[in-house]
Amino acid sequence: MHGLGNDFVVIDAIHQNFHPTPEAIRQLADRQRGIGCDQLLLVAPSSHELADFRYRIFNANGDEVEQCGNGARCFARFVVDHGLAAGPEICVQTLGGLMWLRIRPDGQVCVDMGQPRFEPADIPFDAPERAPLYELEAGGKLYEVGAVSLGNPHAVMRVDNLDAMPIAKVGALIETHSRFPRHVNVGFMQIISPEHIRLRVFERGVGETQACGSGACAAVAIGRDNEWLKESVAVDLTGGRLMITWEGEGQSLKMTGPATTVYEGRVV
Amino acid sequence: MHGLGNDFVVIDAIHQNFHPTPEAIRQLADRQRGIGCDQLLLVAPSSHELADFRYRIFNANGDEVEQCGNGARCFARFVVDHGLAAGPEICVQTLGGLMWLRIRPDGQVCVDMGQPRFEPADIPFDAPERAPLYELEAGGKLYEVGAVSLGNPHAVMRVDNLDAMPIAKVGALIETHSRFPRHVNVGFMQIISPEHIRLRVFERGVGETQACGSGACAAVAIGRDNEWLKESVAVDLTGGRLMITWEGEGQSLKMTGPATTVYEGRVV
Repeated sequence: MHGLGNDFVVIDAIHQNFHPTPEAIRQLADRQRGIGCDQLLLVAPSSHELADFRYRIFNANGDEVEQCGNGARCFARFVVDHGLAAGPEICVQTLGGLMWLRIRPDGQVCVDMGQPRFEPADIPFDAPERAPLYELEAGGKLYEVGAVSLGNPHAVMRVDNLDAMPIAKVGALIETHSRFPRHVNVGFMQIISPEHIRLRVFERGVGETQACGSGACAAVAIGRDNEWLKESVAVDLTGGRLMITWEGEGQSLKMTGPATTVYEGRVV
Repeated sequence: MHGLGNDFVVIDAIHQNFHPTPEAIRQLADRQRGIGCDQLLLVAPSSHELADFRYRIFNANGDEVEQCGNGARCFARFVVDHGLAAGPEICVQTLGGLMWLRIRPDGQVCVDMGQPRFEPADIPFDAPERAPLYELEAGGKLYEVGAVSLGNPHAVMRVDNLDAMPIAKVGALIETHSRFPRHVNVGFMQIISPEHIRLRVFERGVGETQACGSGACAAVAIGRDNEWLKESVAVDLTGGRLMITWEGEGQSLKMTGPATTVYEGRVV
């Protein structure tokens, strides 16, 4: 399956006995000698009936990770399309906490991405107090960025022309900036209108990617906090469009986007 | 499926109506939004009952090509494993002519790669007459290479230490050398013993690859022509081992190696 080009192998580990080792995951994720994917997603039983399912996410290197928004949409499609879910609303347990997912009648999937956290200590970001924008010195230049946590840290920079921006260079400078002690994902946002932005994201430890769901949420949170954007915003990422809705402080961000099944298979 | 890391999507186009456009092939070969492969192989009916099957090969960009030795092994495994072949010996029709394939009892696949052609005009290579080795000037240095055609042109250089060789640099210089008017695949061969070589191949238009079947045959043909090698030679490529057998002039080269099925699927 894929969500805006971020691709997944999704495995039903409820009706199959599947407990992969990191080595087995690396083999399945290998694009030449295995199936090939960015992440492997496991549909597993929830522990202590906390949720409808346990949603486990493994990177191609075998590491288990907390969260993947593009994967969450594919997870929801998978359990609904395979008749594993009782209805279109699903609660899943992840290493990052509980998540709510909903398949809409048009087939798009809405994911509750939780509340953004702006307090510098929560991001973590080295700043004396919360502000809508911060000045950041990097590579001898001064940049103005917003900072927010969506479970993972994000810096968002507003730019006039996304195509003229040296994303790889500036992204790498900010990603490892000393004021972000756990490093940071870096979003570059061009505002087309208060309801429409373009966004490119340099992901922490990865580089620029096709579509970063939490990055889209971070951009809208920063854009709303600065009163640049309205409540519902179309976010055009390199890989395609996500709709992000945020009513404001105290509310969860909602991310809506596609989840595509490419093929179904059986490892022989 | 894969043959030493060269990976394929293999489709039965005898029992299914499948006539892909180049655009459809590019979509299937896309590693993020499709299945992902180096080449797509079609099992199709032979025209005029010339052979048991027609073996069609498409590169990931949608172009149909003449030949792929790693693919031929996977093709043979596929038709035997799916009960499409009458026995372990198969004759297939390709754009490059007829090919004979055989599944051995141990599961390895033997491919008849045809006769090597050493005449300079057949390669094509600019030289006054056939010789076991030629001096080639490239980048201000003199290299000694053998030259042979296996349907496609190959230059083979014997080196003392494969790990010390700047393959990308020297490969690119020779690949586009003016004496090879249709460019050339470049093999770098280290002889461990008369029955065992190590080989790295810089493929024409591609760069260094994991495992080039015709390159392995070319190296053994040149090694035999120079009386460095015996009749059967184990060729250790980056992606794994091929056994190459050549009885000598007037005989076909035989390539034996693995073909691995990773998974079976259904596009939904």
